Amino acid sequence: MNQTEAPYPQVLVSVDTVVLTLQDDALHVVLVRRSQPPFEGVWALPGGYIHAQEDADAQDSAVRVLRDKVGIAGAYLEQLATFSGPARDPRGWSVAIAYCALVSSAQLPPHDGVKRVPVAALGQLPFDHHAIVAAALARVRNKSQYSSLPVHLCGETFTLPQLQQVYESILGEPLNKVSFRRKMDEMQLLEAVPGAMRSGGAHRPAQLYRVRAPFQQALALSVRGL
Amino acid sequence: MNQTEAPYPQVLVSVDTVVLTLQDDALHVVLVRRSQPPFEGVWALPGGYIHAQEDADAQDSAVRVLRDKVGIAGAYLEQLATFSGPARDPRGWSVAIAYCALVSSAQLPPHDGVKRVPVAALGQLPFDHHAIVAAALARVRNKSQYSSLPVHLCGETFTLPQLQQVYESILGEPLNKVSFRRKMDEMQLLEAVPGAMRSGGAHRPAQLYRVRAPFQQALALSVRGL
Repeated sequence: MNQTEAPYPQVLVSVDTVVLTLQDDALHVVLVRRSQPPFEGVWALPGGYIHAQEDADAQDSAVRVLRDKVGIAGAYLEQLATFSGPARDPRGWSVAIAYCALVSSAQLPPHDGVKRVPVAALGQLPFDHHAIVAAALARVRNKSQYSSLPVHLCGETFTLPQLQQVYESILGEPLNKVSFRRKMDEMQLLEAVPGAMRSGGAHRPAQLYRVRAPFQQALALSVRGL
Repeated sequence: MNQTEAPYPQVLVSVDTVVLTLQDDALHVVLVRRSQPPFEGVWALPGGYIHAQEDADAQDSAVRVLRDKVGIAGAYLEQLATFSGPARDPRGWSVAIAYCALVSSAQLPPHDGVKRVPVAALGQLPFDHHAIVAAALARVRNKSQYSSLPVHLCGETFTLPQLQQVYESILGEPLNKVSFRRKMDEMQLLEAVPGAMRSGGAHRPAQLYRVRAPFQQALALSVRGL
């Protein structure tokens, strides 16, 4: 078989990314306006073909898509699942390797043709992007029960009440403060920023924390869940 | 762009399957002898190209591969992860959508060019198949801590001590019998087979159980882990 010929009709391969961020304590997903057919002009998940000449793997393709189409660098990124079939893309039998990224508001610069939509108000999306978003939300909500995943929605420094609020926004329920802090301790996730306090209006100043280096790209896991 | 032309150099797309089974209380992985290049004659994970004319999605491709190359039907199957890059296959930039299947010994018929190897004695594998097997083992060991996944390694009926032994073989540690049975109750996973007992030599006959219908293809989850 010749290296440039497929033994079977061609399968299209792309990556799609679900970028989640918090705004006003609500999860938002990032959409981009498509610049070409199919669905030209429609808001969709950021995605694109694999560039075999330059991408080291599909995750590298996702990093490139986020950089070029959304203006994001250094996001926490994990592979979500792969979606496939003859009907999900009008161009033919296709495979979309989906990634989920969690970013802070500060990591999302203003960018032409990019918007954030509350996940509760998402409406119609082209392709099977609605199923991809649903899978990302299920993954993030599930993993937030026993891991450090939500910390990637925070800025570089934050107080413990702010971090607890982030967890609560994802999980959709209030958490016990004492138990929450014990779990954060167990995961050895955080370190206090020396001398950094946040003044909180009527409250007394609160210590600022940041994520310890080993967990900036990897997850810390809690043995028993929150 | 013409529908039959790729905008970028072609990416090869295949599925690879990690079929796990128990033999002598040890996890085994199924290998097939490759019938064509690359790595002709070498033992590897069962895999194959997507057949865009006939496969409804990549999972359907994996079902076809298991049927045609291993002789398995009706296995519990879940998507594992997608592996990709320019170096994993000598034919070019490739994507392998990997699936993990759990089967009982009885579901694995004798089949030409198929063998089972203990995961502890796996040795070298072609492509990145070693990384794919490692991901499958990590997934199965992790999920076995809080779900019904191991039940798919059992035959149609089994006793509770047999099921506990299956969990222990995967987790690599003994489990408390009382706590184990409480978790099985909580998951509402099993039903007693009316009138069916297994005589156990010196022991008194033990009740036989089977998996309740809702959990024959889906996982039951335990809230707190085993």
